[in-house]
Amino acid sequence: MKELLYGAAYYDEYMPYDRLEKDVAMMKKAGINTIRIAESTWSTCEPQEGVFDFSHVTRVMDAMEEAGINVIIGTPTYAVPTWMVKAYPDVLAETVKGRGIYGARQIMDITHPVYRYYAERVIRKLMEVSAHRKCVIGFQLDNETKYYGTAGKNVQLGFVKYLREKFNNDLNALNHEFGLDYWSNRINAWEDFPDVRGTINGSLGAEFEKYQRSLVEEFLGWQAEIVSEYKREDQFITHNLDFEWRGYSYGVQPDVDHFKCAKHLTLAGVDIYHPTQDTLTGAEIAFGGDLIRSLKNDNYLVLETEAQGYPGWTPYDGQLRLQAYSHLAAGALGVMYWHWHSIHNSFETYWRGLLSHDMEENAVYREACIIGNEFRKLSPVLSGFKKNNKVAIMVNNESLTALKWFGIEADAAGNNGIRYNDVVRWIYDALYKMNIECDIIYSESTDIEKYKAVILPAMYVADEKLLKCLKDYTMHGGTLIATFKTAFANENVKVYPDRQPHILNEVFGIYYQQFTFPKNVTLTGFESGAPEAEHFMELLMSEGAETVLAYQHSNWKKYAAVTRHAYGKGEAWYIGCMFEEKYLQQLFVRILGENGIHAAAPEQFPVIVREGINEKGENIRFYLNYAWEEQIIKVSEKFSTVLGTADEEHREVSLGSWDVCIIKIG
Amino acid sequence: MKELLYGAAYYDEYMPYDRLEKDVAMMKKAGINTIRIAESTWSTCEPQEGVFDFSHVTRVMDAMEEAGINVIIGTPTYAVPTWMVKAYPDVLAETVKGRGIYGARQIMDITHPVYRYYAERVIRKLMEVSAHRKCVIGFQLDNETKYYGTAGKNVQLGFVKYLREKFNNDLNALNHEFGLDYWSNRINAWEDFPDVRGTINGSLGAEFEKYQRSLVEEFLGWQAEIVSEYKREDQFITHNLDFEWRGYSYGVQPDVDHFKCAKHLTLAGVDIYHPTQDTLTGAEIAFGGDLIRSLKNDNYLVLETEAQGYPGWTPYDGQLRLQAYSHLAAGALGVMYWHWHSIHNSFETYWRGLLSHDMEENAVYREACIIGNEFRKLSPVLSGFKKNNKVAIMVNNESLTALKWFGIEADAAGNNGIRYNDVVRWIYDALYKMNIECDIIYSESTDIEKYKAVILPAMYVADEKLLKCLKDYTMHGGTLIATFKTAFANENVKVYPDRQPHILNEVFGIYYQQFTFPKNVTLTGFESGAPEAEHFMELLMSEGAETVLAYQHSNWKKYAAVTRHAYGKGEAWYIGCMFEEKYLQQLFVRILGENGIHAAAPEQFPVIVREGINEKGENIRFYLNYAWEEQIIKVSEKFSTVLGTADEEHREVSLGSWDVCIIKIG
Amino acid sequence: MKELLYGAAYYDEYMPYDRLEKDVAMMKKAGINTIRIAESTWSTCEPQEGVFDFSHVTRVMDAMEEAGINVIIGTPTYAVPTWMVKAYPDVLAETVKGRGIYGARQIMDITHPVYRYYAERVIRKLMEVSAHRKCVIGFQLDNETKYYGTAGKNVQLGFVKYLREKFNNDLNALNHEFGLDYWSNRINAWEDFPDVRGTINGSLGAEFEKYQRSLVEEFLGWQAEIVSEYKREDQFITHNLDFEWRGYSYGVQPDVDHFKCAKHLTLAGVDIYHPTQDTLTGAEIAFGGDLIRSLKNDNYLVLETEAQGYPGWTPYDGQLRLQAYSHLAAGALGVMYWHWHSIHNSFETYWRGLLSHDMEENAVYREACIIGNEFRKLSPVLSGFKKNNKVAIMVNNESLTALKWFGIEADAAGNNGIRYNDVVRWIYDALYKMNIECDIIYSESTDIEKYKAVILPAMYVADEKLLKCLKDYTMHGGTLIATFKTAFANENVKVYPDRQPHILNEVFGIYYQQFTFPKNVTLTGFESGAPEAEHFMELLMSEGAETVLAYQHSNWKKYAAVTRHAYGKGEAWYIGCMFEEKYLQQLFVRILGENGIHAAAPEQFPVIVREGINEKGENIRFYLNYAWEEQIIKVSEKFSTVLGTADEEHREVSLGSWDVCIIKIG
Repeated sequence: MKELLYGAAYYDEYMPYDRLEKDVAMMKKAGINTIRIAESTWSTCEPQEGVFDFSHVTRVMDAMEEAGINVIIGTPTYAVPTWMVKAYPDVLAETVKGRGIYGARQIMDITHPVYRYYAERVIRKLMEVSAHRKCVIGFQLDNETKYYGTAGKNVQLGFVKYLREKFNNDLNALNHEFGLDYWSNRINAWEDFPDVRGTINGSLGAEFEKYQRSLVEEFLGWQAEIVSEYKREDQFITHNLDFEWRGYSYGVQPDVDHFKCAKHLTLAGVDIYHPTQDTLTGAEIAFGGDLIRSLKNDNYLVLETEAQGYPGWTPYDGQLRLQAYSHLAAGALGVMYWHWHSIHNSFETYWRGLLSHDMEENAVYREACIIGNEFRKLSPVLSGFKKNNKVAIMVNNESLTALKWFGIEADAAGNNGIRYNDVVRWIYDALYKMNIECDIIYSESTDIEKYKAVILPAMYVADEKLLKCLKDYTMHGGTLIATFKTAFANENVKVYPDRQPHILNEVFGIYYQQFTFPKNVTLTGFESGAPEAEHFMELLMSEGAETVLAYQHSNWKKYAAVTRHAYGKGEAWYIGCMFEEKYLQQLFVRILGENGIHAAAPEQFPVIVREGINEKGENIRFYLNYAWEEQIIKVSEKFSTVLGTADEEHREVSLGSWDVCIIKIG
Repeated sequence: MKELLYGAAYYDEYMPYDRLEKDVAMMKKAGINTIRIAESTWSTCEPQEGVFDFSHVTRVMDAMEEAGINVIIGTPTYAVPTWMVKAYPDVLAETVKGRGIYGARQIMDITHPVYRYYAERVIRKLMEVSAHRKCVIGFQLDNETKYYGTAGKNVQLGFVKYLREKFNNDLNALNHEFGLDYWSNRINAWEDFPDVRGTINGSLGAEFEKYQRSLVEEFLGWQAEIVSEYKREDQFITHNLDFEWRGYSYGVQPDVDHFKCAKHLTLAGVDIYHPTQDTLTGAEIAFGGDLIRSLKNDNYLVLETEAQGYPGWTPYDGQLRLQAYSHLAAGALGVMYWHWHSIHNSFETYWRGLLSHDMEENAVYREACIIGNEFRKLSPVLSGFKKNNKVAIMVNNESLTALKWFGIEADAAGNNGIRYNDVVRWIYDALYKMNIECDIIYSESTDIEKYKAVILPAMYVADEKLLKCLKDYTMHGGTLIATFKTAFANENVKVYPDRQPHILNEVFGIYYQQFTFPKNVTLTGFESGAPEAEHFMELLMSEGAETVLAYQHSNWKKYAAVTRHAYGKGEAWYIGCMFEEKYLQQLFVRILGENGIHAAAPEQFPVIVREGINEKGENIRFYLNYAWEEQIIKVSEKFSTVLGTADEEHREVSLGSWDVCIIKIG
Repeated sequence: MKELLYGAAYYDEYMPYDRLEKDVAMMKKAGINTIRIAESTWSTCEPQEGVFDFSHVTRVMDAMEEAGINVIIGTPTYAVPTWMVKAYPDVLAETVKGRGIYGARQIMDITHPVYRYYAERVIRKLMEVSAHRKCVIGFQLDNETKYYGTAGKNVQLGFVKYLREKFNNDLNALNHEFGLDYWSNRINAWEDFPDVRGTINGSLGAEFEKYQRSLVEEFLGWQAEIVSEYKREDQFITHNLDFEWRGYSYGVQPDVDHFKCAKHLTLAGVDIYHPTQDTLTGAEIAFGGDLIRSLKNDNYLVLETEAQGYPGWTPYDGQLRLQAYSHLAAGALGVMYWHWHSIHNSFETYWRGLLSHDMEENAVYREACIIGNEFRKLSPVLSGFKKNNKVAIMVNNESLTALKWFGIEADAAGNNGIRYNDVVRWIYDALYKMNIECDIIYSESTDIEKYKAVILPAMYVADEKLLKCLKDYTMHGGTLIATFKTAFANENVKVYPDRQPHILNEVFGIYYQQFTFPKNVTLTGFESGAPEAEHFMELLMSEGAETVLAYQHSNWKKYAAVTRHAYGKGEAWYIGCMFEEKYLQQLFVRILGENGIHAAAPEQFPVIVREGINEKGENIRFYLNYAWEEQIIKVSEKFSTVLGTADEEHREVSLGSWDVCIIKIG
């Protein structure tokens, strides 16, 4: 796309009175050039079974086409109309809590033929009225699709058939791999397969969740095929991928394998929500962007992000603009808000849009006007902005799931403690604040050789193929960095019955037999300071590795905490416990620095520096100030100013509160 | 009633051995002149379907009649007997958790014809044996009636019919008002109406709760009609109204519209429970009394309050007496304890009565003897004690419900924060501690012109009729005070799509488009000190109003926190955020003082001063000492002593620990 | 048994690969002489209904027999195979939450005939292959049996029949004893008996739990009879009894009456789990041992205890050995770990065994080798080690259950606060740390005359027979000590309707009518210091007793907190509230000291001293150091060293960190 996208989700259906003309005028004033419509409006588009009414869709497309505003059409399938559930109550997913009750979105069984039948029909009807329209630039499949806990008899039957195939009909193999002999869970005939919702077997349970994730992949693929029948060459297919939700977009999405889903899309899409005000750091914007960009190694759409959001997020002056450029700095093609106007009823009344409930101009809208008009001017410079990162963080859903079943801090009292994404974010956030840019790749990725360093945060589940690949990677010169809880279990969440970390113990030059929760344990080996070991610690024993950090504790002092080992042409570092982020940064300075990986600029958080190459091959750099304090920054290279206040002669960039500056290096 | 009532609930049914004669003697000694019997004893009165045995009731009436003790008869319908549920399991309410299991009280479907059939019969039978008895002074309908979450198919069917009528059969109107297009919840045929228990739509959900509350009103009206067929002219009909329960009587009752229910009663009744010992403040007694008294603008019955209650409430010496007079000071006709004796089995074993489990005289009983005998002496002075308050706090159930769906502090992580009653009590408690007496009125009240000031704590749901009425009230000279979250949504919990507060923005001379949760925000404008803004803040913009308090914060300093505006002949104050109570008191001193509203006496909490006029037109004043510390109080007026220690010559009142003094002014 | 047992649970079924030969070799090296097999392996032993395969069992017995290692056979009935549940879903217990879903262990209805039919058959088949084997020294019935909440129609029908018999078909008696008139719960016909799962009546609810506990007794008796048909004279029958679980073995088991179950066993067995590292105190080992030993007044088996357990428990060097000797010091016949190897799948992957997941030698295994070889040498000295304690703590399940229904700190907000076992452990731990050894006996015990002192922690439910027995005990010279909440309710959890404590008020020379939760109340009467009253306080009034401690508080100062009373030839102490443990120790020094009860040695925790008499009649003393700090201890008697470092000449024992020393006195 030539133009940076700037826009919002727009719901003509939800308006308290006819606003279309006024909204278009306000959009134009704000430089908005794209809207997303139709997702979640099934009950309006098909008010009764087989009765279709796309008047809202058509009327909005008409208005936008006239105004020169792009439209993304969302298939309306993620919330089902009442008539369907009334006639076929079984379309609601049966979960571990039983059959659902109508009301919320995302509560149906996405595999159910009744749902599929109606979904296909409404998609086709919608495509018929929209696909040929000039204003329509692409399609979003469904929205934030998950499997919604679907685990009814039909789904479980599919799962058993899937297992039969996976294990070549060999129950002994299944029992052995999953360890079902334990507590008499052994299955001795396929027809004895128990209701999997009650299982206490982590291997079986994790496999079922993996199967449930595959339903999402199949569902999106199915929708993509339907849409493809209608779409023009120039129209994209995307999906609104999202993240583990902790009141905001936190980490790897537990219920969807983004890597697999992305194959069905021509363009990756995402929504990212995050705290603002004094807790705005940009970390979620960067994390989400780095992960989504890496899925297809390409630019991506920010289909949703907050304008005002919940009251606690009402942005300070400048923050909306800072956020917008942070998305671009990660490789986004633009920014779209959820949503244009604050709605006046129902669940998300306080998830406020650009316009407040009074639908007049307000502080946020006025800032959007600035952003939209800057975007227009900057499009020639910023379009096609690409990354060439040297560091990758490798993640996978299987480890996330397994560490839910076997919590890192799980104890005999049933507490589960920190989770997979806490480790992922521990690693990511340290790099982010040091301005070391990275890709976030899934373990199925096949091109890791291009990275100078690959980091494995708690890669608990790792099959032997992956482990051999990582071994080769290091052997051939890569820098491999792993934390505790890596390579502990195979793809069936069976703990490897030999030295941990499995296979990689040779690469890291260490092994361990014991681990514990640290109490009053500090780490020695830093030049100054000695952080506490936190959450979990492995008692590492060297088999050739150098002990970089050791534990200080009466009983654990004989064990290493962080080790380094030359392996082949490469180097392998093992981090056996968690500790304060600033010390992790110190460690990364050493590990990465010694392997020739440095930040683009010496600044650190709250000044965030992001870099990349635009379509013309120019080196573009963003300075983002995540603070009230103004900043004057020395730039070592010659540059020209793209946006913001800079003194090219004295090579200085000036950043106000929550401000941004973009320069072209050279 | 000429005599102050003093009494207790009495359960001959629960006695471990025959105690009646001894209990009557102990009651007489304590000055007890009234007991309440029979409520909750259905399984004793009707041991098998159609078999009646009122021997406990009759024997107690006989004994009381002989002893000259009044009896209040409670209909026994709030706990159903086993035989009914065994034969008709469907009489148990079906709630969002499914059909209940027999055991607790208050678990039936109060609309169920089976329940109604048997309830009517047992009420009539009980009336036949009791209504003509001389000792019987009145009747209590059921007890603490609620709707118990009843939401079965029958109830939902009634709800749909109710909606059909409300919206004149116009589904479009319903969809539009409730915003059902959102998330595809639109209902396009009445027969598609979904199970409302699953709804995520706050408008639909709040309407259903309103409908459920109307079932309580209908139920009490139905019982009142039956009882009226039997009762004598001199007998009253009351009900035991209660409050939001937070381990004690906290605020407006969420599940019952007291205002509407009170129409079915000839005399309002209430139960009030509260902490004691060092946390006894009298605030719950005063709050409950002010609200219940205002329902019928008349004196009321305290049908239940604690004697000893739970172990944490065991009263200090003097507290039982202080509490008793606090009830009278609010306009109660007397005090009745729940209950006479501590029971030896089942759920409320530790909700101890006047007598402990040993049923001997004890410390509390001995204090009751003092109270009962004082009551007898004071009856001529204190009967018909009335209020003439100049301040009203206006509440409604609709705002309470809406702020449950849309929590004041609700965030994206799903936390809900403070509730409606926290705001109500914030306002109330400040006035209480300043000794500014007030009425607590429901928004349906039609006679607000009699108040000098009306206060709206978080009147979130307000229809246009009410808003225009409040506008007129101010225009004509009233002082209107509102907090944040007032006039935000209409009667269907649809946010008003124009300037907030709707209609009233003109009255207050302000509007706002944004709000947030305050962090490190202080308020400037007080003569000394600067409280923190707490919980929630609206970013007020003046349109003519004077900024009385402003926010101190880098980003919010341009907005007002508290404003004042002359409107017509009146004045309007808007309070945009919460803050520490003592500062609210300072603000009230200013607001009310400038409008000629002052406390009866200059004392402040822990000395509570209450005032009113007795039947003879005399001005009676209570001094209540909520503290260990003794107090000597100067009285500016001439007075004579009704109760307690006072020096009339030097115009001084002396209060010991947890002590009370009553004087007649003039 | 002549040899101290040292062993582990062993699961050939769970092995990732064939390990038997290697495991036997490693066991031999570690001095392991006993393993437990087969419990929980039903689905392996009977892969399909009626198809039996005991090859794992047989192969392990063969190997062990050859190696000279003992085998304990566990009946495999506490986890049911999938085929049974698939065919008969009703075998899963129906609890208050409804019918269970297959997955976890211990979810069946232990009374269900289908379950019983299959369980009996598999037990008989297992006995047939194992009972005659030389290596088999005994049998464990099931494992940690409970009733698993079973409350289906069949169970409730049994309960009603049980009540009919208990009350001689007299419903009036039942209603009166249980107080069912309350809230209309009265049952006027047996066929009206409601679903007891919903009851809010503590008497009925507690009786049902007692009935459910009786199902466990009946079940174990039934298994014992079956096993007895096969077992040899020299083989024992045991069961793995356990405790209230608070993430570790905390106190009296709520769901099983150990005293009654023990009658079905020839040898008591137990599992004990506890924190280690800096929180290892030995208290759970001692508590569990004292309770289990007292059941049959004999030595007992530790069938399970942790080797490594959860990560937080990974033991420090020396702790595994210290723990092992602590078990022996309480009278255990030896120590068996759960379990030999860490398993690689399913629920207890992190409940690690002696071997870690790599199944190599590790730190813990190496310490086990030391222990096992020491055990072998010490067997002649330590076998048949017996106690002769002078103090007994008396407990019962009925008080535990009742204090769940009526929590000690239960308040009107629904909080329940501390529980029965908190009081039991408060008493026990104080004695433990003072090195006062005690028996823990159930209230059905008939031989209390042998104790110099009997302590009743919160013996809330006590029938009159027991109370008269305790009265006689004191009258005849015993020292009776009771805490608050003793003798408050009868065996039907009906509060005694006279002076508390019922009957015993004469013995203690006190009574009370009121109680409260202490706030800012201190206790006066200690020589130095004044602890706060905590959790609960009774307001004691003397009727002859000496006030030993009094409350310091404006309102409660007139009441006693701790009293002492001479009664007959004995003495009775009443402790009316809780307070800090170290003050309780001071109190015990006085109470017990004055009655001639002293610790074996003057040391206190962290040095634990335990004593007893071995088979030869020699006086054996253990010194156990629960600390990092080394200790030099003076011994007042002549002694010879059994284990550890001691200077017999200078009569000194030396203890390193977490070290043990055993001496023979005289």
